[in-house]
This record gives sequence, structure tokens and C-alpha cells, in this order.
Amino acid sequence: MDLTRQVNIHKYNENQLSISVDVVVREVPITLFVNDDELVTLVCSPHGLKELAIGFLCSEGVLSKPKDLKNITINHNEGLIWVETSVPETPIKNNFMKRYITTCCGRGRVSFYFINDATSIKPITDGNLKISTAEITGLSAALEEKSGLFRLTGGAHGAALCRRDGIISFYEDIGRHNAVDKLFGHSFLESIALEDKAIVLSGRISSEILIKVGRMGIPIVISRAAPSDLALQLADELGITVIGFVRGNRLNIYTHPERVTL
Amino acid sequence: MDLTRQVNIHKYNENQLSISVDVVVREVPITLFVNDDELVTLVCSPHGLKELAIGFLCSEGVLSKPKDLKNITINHNEGLIWVETSVPETPIKNNFMKRYITTCCGRGRVSFYFINDATSIKPITDGNLKISTAEITGLSAALEEKSGLFRLTGGAHGAALCRRDGIISFYEDIGRHNAVDKLFGHSFLESIALEDKAIVLSGRISSEILIKVGRMGIPIVISRAAPSDLALQLADELGITVIGFVRGNRLNIYTHPERVTL
Repeated sequence: MDLTRQVNIHKYNENQLSISVDVVVREVPITLFVNDDELVTLVCSPHGLKELAIGFLCSEGVLSKPKDLKNITINHNEGLIWVETSVPETPIKNNFMKRYITTCCGRGRVSFYFINDATSIKPITDGNLKISTAEITGLSAALEEKSGLFRLTGGAHGAALCRRDGIISFYEDIGRHNAVDKLFGHSFLESIALEDKAIVLSGRISSEILIKVGRMGIPIVISRAAPSDLALQLADELGITVIGFVRGNRLNIYTHPERVTL
Repeated sequence: MDLTRQVNIHKYNENQLSISVDVVVREVPITLFVNDDELVTLVCSPHGLKELAIGFLCSEGVLSKPKDLKNITINHNEGLIWVETSVPETPIKNNFMKRYITTCCGRGRVSFYFINDATSIKPITDGNLKISTAEITGLSAALEEKSGLFRLTGGAHGAALCRRDGIISFYEDIGRHNAVDKLFGHSFLESIALEDKAIVLSGRISSEILIKVGRMGIPIVISRAAPSDLALQLADELGITVIGFVRGNRLNIYTHPERVTL
């Protein structure tokens, strides 16, 4: 399915109005059914829908082991995806995006806000992975190089799973969250180990993105954009290195700098 | 509540690593209860929470008339908001973010993907509002001027409700959708007429944003960023003028150019 569409526009430039053609990013709604129950509707770029569905369910803690996934059926024309899992129905429905309300006694991890995340995301304890500043700026440049949909339309975010020396897998999507979910789904389906990888993003590192990275078990997240304070609190707790504002030969290391070498 | 927080970082610049202080945008989870039922958790900038809650419910079609709103209670410390409405519970729960699946016979409006939107958003029929290219670029510059949180942190989106000659109300938020919802909530609470206003955004015009604008009944949406093809389809159906990529003295008119004058 095409990721872009040509549209006729009126272009105004230096006091002149002219008829022109513009390339616009495509956006489709996809509704995800789990064991025949409608769970959520996502709007996304029409590519990697299987990866998106599986990655979304991994992000939400519904799928965690390959054997949880029994079947997936996609109707591309109508934008409908049915996933069959061996996970019992009740915990999915009862905890899906339900708020984790902490008490003032300070028990539990305070930065999480969804029950599923608070009860199942574990801190990263492996501290062996290191990355150099030159490798970080190199990966950020490689992401920019690959981001063709953004260059064409200005309407997409890129996300790449990386080894220190280069990109392994890459997705672009109109949504920052979708691009990361597609990487997650691809890694789940291909059984790619994540604990020794970095993730590089074009978009901001919000708490929602950081939670996805935490659930993937990826120790390093790199972006050319800004992080939020809640993402940094979570990264601190989860042992994740956050690197932001990577531009040219400059970058900011926000949390767990012990993984970064000169 | 503060909208930013200072954090200690390691800054790498031209082969030098130094300790520095950075200003990071704050992000808080807010859980919305409607008539005592947990409806949704939003992550947002901790400002204008009343406007966000009411605007979100307006966007979702739960609130449409002032008399629908009976009471609102906010617990700022825990990020909890309770809204009491006179709307019966069943339609809220049954239709909230539920997919509107169209048949191949082409009945109904095909671009909507949620039941609530498809059944209640009406096209704009008033074609009297006009705006000039100079007014458009002026409003875009005024938005940029006001966007202090973005300048400070790089992590916020701005949205402004405007008359042709200037901004009436303005919100910044870590989320594009929240900024628009806060404008919607403010307009609902203050009974501001919307059919003769324009909305100016720093972020992209996705279908979700366009649907909010459509429900507000605003005839003109302006952004310095890109629209999606689905947003343009909806704008075409709803009679909304979409203007994108407003930068300096340049802009693109995507739909309903009849409202734009030189």
C-alpha cells in the first residue's frame, strides 16, 4: 500500500498564488481485535501492520513470549487485525490502560502510571554495553539518511534498532509510538535479542516512549529531540541511558552516562 | 505547578564532555473519571487540567451542551479528575473510541473511524469567514512568539484560537492533541463562539486533530507543519480550510481555498 498520496494545492510564495502538486503522508485507521474483542484503534502509516499489531500488544504487556501468539489475520482493505493469543481474556480487559494509582506510603515504583507497566517492567541490570559519542552521532546521522518518508512529506517519525556500528531494522510512521511498536513487533517476530542494542528515534522521548523501551529491555535510547522529565525519572529507575538533542557533533546525556565513552 | 524542571546532564560538544544544567519539560499522568467510571489516562503538561478534561470530553462527543456538565473535581497531587455529567452512562461506555466500520455499499461518511465522530460531527456550512495570506502568516508568527515552553525545552506544542487579527486564547502542552483539547475546554467553559474563528497549531494536522477541529466547528486550521491525507479527506468532507507549511512568507492551501484572499 502506498505510503504517500499526491494532492493538488494552492501554493502561496512571495506574494504569488499558484496551483501546484504536493506529496502528503498517508494515514489509515487500524482496529485491533484480541481473541475477538475490539481492543483499540490506531491511526498509522499503512506499512508493517503485522509488526504494529504485535508490537502494540508487546508494549501493553499482553504478549511477552512467542508461544503467547497463536494466530494473526489482517484485512488490509478494511484496516482490521485479529490476534489470537493463549493469554486469558480477563487480565487483558481488566488492566488495559488502567491507571496505577500509588499510595502516599511510597510502596511500589512511583513513576509508572499504568498497572500493566508497574507490575511487569523490570530494571535493566546488565551494564556491559558501552557506546561512544562518535557511534551515537553516527547512528543519528544514519537514521536521518534513511528517513525518506519524512523528507518527502514532513509528516513521519523514524525509529531504528541499532548495534553500535549501524542500523539493524528501521520503521517510519506518522506516529512516534507506532514506529517504536513496529520495531518491537519485528524484534518479537524475528526473535532479535534486544539487551545489547540501542534504539534511535527522530521524535521526542516522552514517558510513553521510555516505557516501551523499558519493556523491550533496551539499555540505550538516542534522539535528536527533547526528553520529558517523567521519561527521565523512569529511565533513571529502569537503568536506561537517555541521550537527547543529538545534532551534528553535539549531544546531551541525561541518565546513566556510565555507558557512554568518548 | 511548574511546567519545567532543571536536571543535571553531561553535555558533549566539539569533543569536550562537561557537566551542565538543562531545562526539561514536565509531563504528568492525569486520569479522567466520568460519573465515577475510569475513562482514560492522558499524559500532559500540568497546566489547564480543567480545560483538558472538559475539552477531551467535548472532543469525544461526551459533552456538547453546557448543561451536560454537572460538576468537576480535581486532585492535583494525584492527577485525578472526576467529571459528573447528566449524560447517561451507557452511550459513553459503549461508543468510547469504538471503531466505525463502514460497509462497501458506501453508506455514511467513509473517512471517520470512530462511531461517535461519524454520528455527530456535521459539515460547516457557513462560508462567510475569509482570511488573507498576510493574516495567516501573521497568526503563525504570533503563535511562535508565544511558544515560550517550546523555546525553553524543545518539548511542547502550541495551539491558539484566533480572530483574523490576533490570538484570543493559547495553550502549550507536551501533546499536540492536549493543546487542542485545552482550547476546546476553555471555549466550552467560557462560551466562546467558534464558527468565526481560526485555529493555529505548531504541530502536524493529523486526522485526530482535524476531527477535533471539526467537532469544534472551526472553519480554518493553520499549521507550520504537514497535514496527513486522511486529515485532508475529512477536511474536504467537513468544509474546513486546511493551510499547512506556513513558514515566513510561504504557505500551502490544501482544502477549501475559497476562504483565503490575497
